[in-house]
Amino acid sequence: MGVLEAVQRELKALFGSRALLGPERGVYRYDAILVGPEPLAVVLPESREEVQALVRLARKHGLPLVPRGAGSGLSGGAVPEEGAMVVAFTRMTRLELDPKGRTAWAEPGVTTARISEEARPYGLFYPPDPASWRTSTLGGNLGENAGGPLCFKYGVTGDYLLELEFVDAFGEAHRLSRQAYDLPGLLIGSEGTLGLITGARVRLLPLPRHRATLMAAFPEVGSLAEAVSRAIAEGAVPAKLEFLDPVCVGAVEDYLGMGLPRGHALLLAETDGDDIEVVQEELSLLERTAQGLGARVRRAQDEKEAEALWRARRAVSPALGRIRPKRVNEDIAVPRSRLPQVVREIAALAEAYGLIVAQFGHIGDGNLHPNILFDPRRESEERVWELAHEIARVALRHGGVLSGEHGIGLMKREFMREAVDGATLEAFRAAKGALDPQGLFNPRKVLP
Amino acid sequence: MGVLEAVQRELKALFGSRALLGPERGVYRYDAILVGPEPLAVVLPESREEVQALVRLARKHGLPLVPRGAGSGLSGGAVPEEGAMVVAFTRMTRLELDPKGRTAWAEPGVTTARISEEARPYGLFYPPDPASWRTSTLGGNLGENAGGPLCFKYGVTGDYLLELEFVDAFGEAHRLSRQAYDLPGLLIGSEGTLGLITGARVRLLPLPRHRATLMAAFPEVGSLAEAVSRAIAEGAVPAKLEFLDPVCVGAVEDYLGMGLPRGHALLLAETDGDDIEVVQEELSLLERTAQGLGARVRRAQDEKEAEALWRARRAVSPALGRIRPKRVNEDIAVPRSRLPQVVREIAALAEAYGLIVAQFGHIGDGNLHPNILFDPRRESEERVWELAHEIARVALRHGGVLSGEHGIGLMKREFMREAVDGATLEAFRAAKGALDPQGLFNPRKVLP
Repeated sequence: MGVLEAVQRELKALFGSRALLGPERGVYRYDAILVGPEPLAVVLPESREEVQALVRLARKHGLPLVPRGAGSGLSGGAVPEEGAMVVAFTRMTRLELDPKGRTAWAEPGVTTARISEEARPYGLFYPPDPASWRTSTLGGNLGENAGGPLCFKYGVTGDYLLELEFVDAFGEAHRLSRQAYDLPGLLIGSEGTLGLITGARVRLLPLPRHRATLMAAFPEVGSLAEAVSRAIAEGAVPAKLEFLDPVCVGAVEDYLGMGLPRGHALLLAETDGDDIEVVQEELSLLERTAQGLGARVRRAQDEKEAEALWRARRAVSPALGRIRPKRVNEDIAVPRSRLPQVVREIAALAEAYGLIVAQFGHIGDGNLHPNILFDPRRESEERVWELAHEIARVALRHGGVLSGEHGIGLMKREFMREAVDGATLEAFRAAKGALDPQGLFNPRKVLP
Repeated sequence: MGVLEAVQRELKALFGSRALLGPERGVYRYDAILVGPEPLAVVLPESREEVQALVRLARKHGLPLVPRGAGSGLSGGAVPEEGAMVVAFTRMTRLELDPKGRTAWAEPGVTTARISEEARPYGLFYPPDPASWRTSTLGGNLGENAGGPLCFKYGVTGDYLLELEFVDAFGEAHRLSRQAYDLPGLLIGSEGTLGLITGARVRLLPLPRHRATLMAAFPEVGSLAEAVSRAIAEGAVPAKLEFLDPVCVGAVEDYLGMGLPRGHALLLAETDGDDIEVVQEELSLLERTAQGLGARVRRAQDEKEAEALWRARRAVSPALGRIRPKRVNEDIAVPRSRLPQVVREIAALAEAYGLIVAQFGHIGDGNLHPNILFDPRRESEERVWELAHEIARVALRHGGVLSGEHGIGLMKREFMREAVDGATLEAFRAAKGALDPQGLFNPRKVLP
């Protein structure tokens, strides 16, 4: 009997029908951006003990394990490699709230939005809000250290982690709070390469009582970025600060016909808090600053109007899909002061490559999502990836980083050589080697 | 020529009079709680390059390096061991503010309070406020992940770190933001055992415009803890929540004669924010909750009265020094809901040991500082440490941790065996071995 048969038999014995060995494995080949080969097997564990048993089995046979949440990632972090087994955490969905302690204990398969939904009756919420939050899972969010519009004011996934349970490459389980030798912190954003997350205690916050929204149309991105910088320097701490470049505005307008000002750059801002006057005053500060820089401002008079304005932001993805059938969603972060220059350089690159690039993102954090739109039947995918690489280089040149919130994964692994010097890469490899000497966990991700 | 002479000659060549080889080394034997042997040498580097040269020298000769800030630590983290060289960072004090980006770049010897002082003209501050903040340094604060009264609302030192520059055990320098493979995060709280910090970019926040203070006297600690829990559950997010047990209240009253209610447990609370009404309303919520549980509440009418109330809290340390000449300042953190039980168990232990234990701390976080007061001429120091160990055990039994904000250092190194299981200790050792295979950096600290 070959190794493969032995592994399959052991998987069947341990997991029964929750070990997928047939064609349904194909569903686990991709995340939201990349496709890999069919995995050797897909396992759907239901408990930490099962994860431990699986790691021991993988270790015995020297087979790599690729952890996976909802597969909504945008950097290829959950895409399998040849001969790997996928651990899909979608059945580990236990969620326990501790409203008094303002925390939640969640298994990795819990969807992000569910935490806030179940916390709402207690007047609490879980702030990290990646765009995919209705489908994405906490395990995946931790693995990629996901952010979202609220992260300017509230911080990213890692800022909410109080305690982490994970299984190491020897099959040992650990449950650790954020103390000295902060292994939970090291696992945040490490995309499953250092351990398999089986549970997490996250912090919840009281829901703010009031929110206010405005939309400001600027003649160009430079003055928009300047307005954001000035308002923040004067003390504004908006909850959300999103921007759309003229390409996005045109696309959304074609799609929805909302009356958006074509050819303009749009800023969408939301302030929140418990005191309606402070919330409105903070928005007024943004409004005055925007107007002072030549923007036309529309302030939502009620929740319904605010909802309508935010619709423009949410429509960006489907709207861009109508311009070209495929896109590569880049994710860089640069110092806020560099934004106008960075946006201009990316636009110039797009022109030089003859490709359409739409730019939007969380401008408060300098987190930009330049989306390269293309049609694989007419445009070379190789050149698209070349352009993505050039965009990453723009970020690095301006003191930025390779990823704001999507992670490195498979997509930006090779770019790491340019982002981090050799000695630091060695230190990263030493950390990986210490925790996973056999290289079982998500090999060939993050580190080049 | 022996190794010692060779080392001394090399140190002199590299650092001149900033390599201390004479009796002045004695000043570097202790932190604020423990004393060690005289170090082989003390070096006062002035730049990252000098730190790199020192590490290469230490590496060549296999001599351990013990990093040190102000020596105000409370766990022995900066106490040298036999044959070690102390790296004192007190001359690396460059501080550069970026008010627009709301960050500060600081070398490790910058004192904590200076960051807020220099940020104040820009309407900004640096929240972490350990009691020693006028003398303690940012490097030491990062090494111990220090907290303070403001940490309930604002978080601890590590929450403010954006970027870290450090020298590794091979003498290589790294400057990293908080990305995947978050080595900066791993260094936080690791007490200089994984790398030598040579610079850090920290986050600054806008100064709140208003503050309000109250003092509430409870008949006993249990109802005080209950009031805190209820107010927090109802949505109060005070900036500071400090408590003093009846032993502390008596000591402060003996010392200052402020008219404090002897025999009571005191809660001191401060709320802050930009809107005076919200700030006062939040304090009112605390006031009503405290009164509902039988407390007498005094609300400060102005800044001056608030200052007077906080004087009671700041007087605890000198006041306790009048009861017994020495003390061991414990530092545990437990779930808030367990506080009444934990405080009672510690009081019972104190009685059983026949030692005076005064309890105070940051009650919002469940961070307690039971201080064992003793006179080494009359009371056995061994029994004092035994009691300290028992207190740590109480914390662990109630789901708490060994250190809230002082670190593990030398003092609690052995307790780690009880706090963390064997497999996790092995994972910690693997991380240490990966980054410092020769064991050069602060050996015999944190890990047992």
